[in-house]
Amino acid sequence: MTLADPLPRGATIGPQALQRGAVIGIVGGGQLGRMTSIAAARLGYRLHVLSADPDDPAMDVAWRHTRLAAPDDMAAVDAFAAAVDVITFETENLDERLLALLERHAHARPSVAAVRLAGDRRLEKAFLNRIGVPTAPWAEVRTAEDIAAFIHAQGAAIVKTARAGYDGKGQMRLRNAADSPRVFDALGGVPIIIEAMLPFLSEVSVVLARGADGAIAAFDVTENVHRGGILDTSTVPAAIDAATASRALDAATRVAHGLDYVGLMALEMFVMEGGAVLANEIAPRPHNSGHWTMDACLASQFEQHVRAICGLPLASPARHADAVMTNLIGPQGAAAWEGLLAVPDTVSHWYGKTEARAGRKLGHATRLAPLKG
Amino acid sequence: MTLADPLPRGATIGPQALQRGAVIGIVGGGQLGRMTSIAAARLGYRLHVLSADPDDPAMDVAWRHTRLAAPDDMAAVDAFAAAVDVITFETENLDERLLALLERHAHARPSVAAVRLAGDRRLEKAFLNRIGVPTAPWAEVRTAEDIAAFIHAQGAAIVKTARAGYDGKGQMRLRNAADSPRVFDALGGVPIIIEAMLPFLSEVSVVLARGADGAIAAFDVTENVHRGGILDTSTVPAAIDAATASRALDAATRVAHGLDYVGLMALEMFVMEGGAVLANEIAPRPHNSGHWTMDACLASQFEQHVRAICGLPLASPARHADAVMTNLIGPQGAAAWEGLLAVPDTVSHWYGKTEARAGRKLGHATRLAPLKG
Repeated sequence: MTLADPLPRGATIGPQALQRGAVIGIVGGGQLGRMTSIAAARLGYRLHVLSADPDDPAMDVAWRHTRLAAPDDMAAVDAFAAAVDVITFETENLDERLLALLERHAHARPSVAAVRLAGDRRLEKAFLNRIGVPTAPWAEVRTAEDIAAFIHAQGAAIVKTARAGYDGKGQMRLRNAADSPRVFDALGGVPIIIEAMLPFLSEVSVVLARGADGAIAAFDVTENVHRGGILDTSTVPAAIDAATASRALDAATRVAHGLDYVGLMALEMFVMEGGAVLANEIAPRPHNSGHWTMDACLASQFEQHVRAICGLPLASPARHADAVMTNLIGPQGAAAWEGLLAVPDTVSHWYGKTEARAGRKLGHATRLAPLKG
Repeated sequence: MTLADPLPRGATIGPQALQRGAVIGIVGGGQLGRMTSIAAARLGYRLHVLSADPDDPAMDVAWRHTRLAAPDDMAAVDAFAAAVDVITFETENLDERLLALLERHAHARPSVAAVRLAGDRRLEKAFLNRIGVPTAPWAEVRTAEDIAAFIHAQGAAIVKTARAGYDGKGQMRLRNAADSPRVFDALGGVPIIIEAMLPFLSEVSVVLARGADGAIAAFDVTENVHRGGILDTSTVPAAIDAATASRALDAATRVAHGLDYVGLMALEMFVMEGGAVLANEIAPRPHNSGHWTMDACLASQFEQHVRAICGLPLASPARHADAVMTNLIGPQGAAAWEGLLAVPDTVSHWYGKTEARAGRKLGHATRLAPLKG
């Protein structure tokens, strides 16, 4: 294919593809919905947001909004479902009552079951282990004694709420069994798990899209650095060898097929001494560690998500540049914004949030460099 | 600057810069407004559209709309002007009554005067000649005899309505003075001009942004091919030598400085045998021949426009790929869409128009290739 070739003719979209002008319904109105709306518009689709706040960041660029008054607001969910051609998600941190209401509608991509699984560490880790994707040793916790017993067996560990955790929230680390009652009292009002804190070399993620036909397009493995439990930077290429990258891609591919997943997802992993990879979390949606694709690929993770859920062919995930994405977080991120706009080879994105609270993701900036090698 | 450098700190935005969250008001709700809204959102701004139809293409991704009931709808213009932090334009084909209403508000970028000038071929060509930018020979036409006299002197010519012409509308060619009465009867109900039809080698355009501080960032010269009066393809790099490119850039730069222009503009030109360039039209807005910048540059023409009118530093206009942009026009363009989505190295954009009328721009596709040399 050269630049001089004529435009191709003829449909390659399957009979299930949503027509241009169709409406994508998304549960959640944050920055992921915002960037999804922009990708949807480029392909001729419109975005309808279901969220509690009609002033959510996505609404600057979304088409319609349905207000969800409470997680059991059946009227809102049903009106939303009736108004859209496909239902998708920008978060897996959803109340089970809302998931149950959404599950009554058949046109969710990914499935509500996949979102529910990714939103509950117990279901998620049991699934990963069942399909042969290794994780750090873990266990459900029902009593403070469960914590103590786990630490006696595994050493240092981290206790996490099973649901509604993100950006390091709902997590406590402990090395000493004597701390078990304190940790259990702090977190144990809801279902919790405990997992071994193993010394990993680095954190990586694979962001991939899977179509309804089972086709998969995976972006290059990304190396992630967290600070204070929040993603700070994502770098591509990751500093890992080819065999390790292959293991990471294989794990993410297994997850996608295992969930019969449709849409874009991410798998976060730890890279261990020796090159083993241990799965940490599934994100059933566009993921912060894939933001670099907006500027280093012709089709971003958001476009791939839209393509997958609308039944369009997936685009090439090849990148045309090396990249480092840095999150702009809280007041410090806000202060960096103006300077960033004058930095060469850097693309800056702002999410339109009105308050620059500490720990809040306000935007990101991706610095690009020519591909090495 | 390497990828490993820390984020820069400190403001480089002048005191006149619009804060994040500010509202850009745009006159017109078509695809240029749509793509401007997307660029505005990435930088944290919101778009408010003034147009006749709240279902215009831009409204899929715009924040607010004010309905303009008629060109002299003062209440709408004033409400719009009061609700936005800066007024800008996606078209220069505006009724003088609307321009006069807008001119009462001081915060237009570019100025209403620049938009008026670009929207009237008489003002435009007189201005170009005054600042030393050559055009084809031209004259105002008041009678059929003016046409005949011009043809006797210059040969083949094209008669154009002075205002409200785009995509080849309001134009008639003639070679024979005997046709003058027919052409005058067809077009002469409104102000018209006549211009010599010279044998040019190619058509090119320069798309550039100019900040309020006079800084200019010009994208590479683009070569344009029209079909049936409508832009068909834009190719970069243009097949012209460095001296010709330099003349084209110089002409566009003169125009921008001459108008004390703020924002993004395009200058369309003819390349003549021997390398002279003759200016054809000024577009006081993002331009179809700059759409390739969306995919071949880190900051598109739309982002540059937003940066310029909001007082942010202009981004680098460097491109990272060669590109051919092809417009998707009418039913044939609509039929090409689905096939395009599977073409590698191609980025496709759809404008969300509901009807695929003949001659209507429905979208575009940009095919990229590695930079040569």
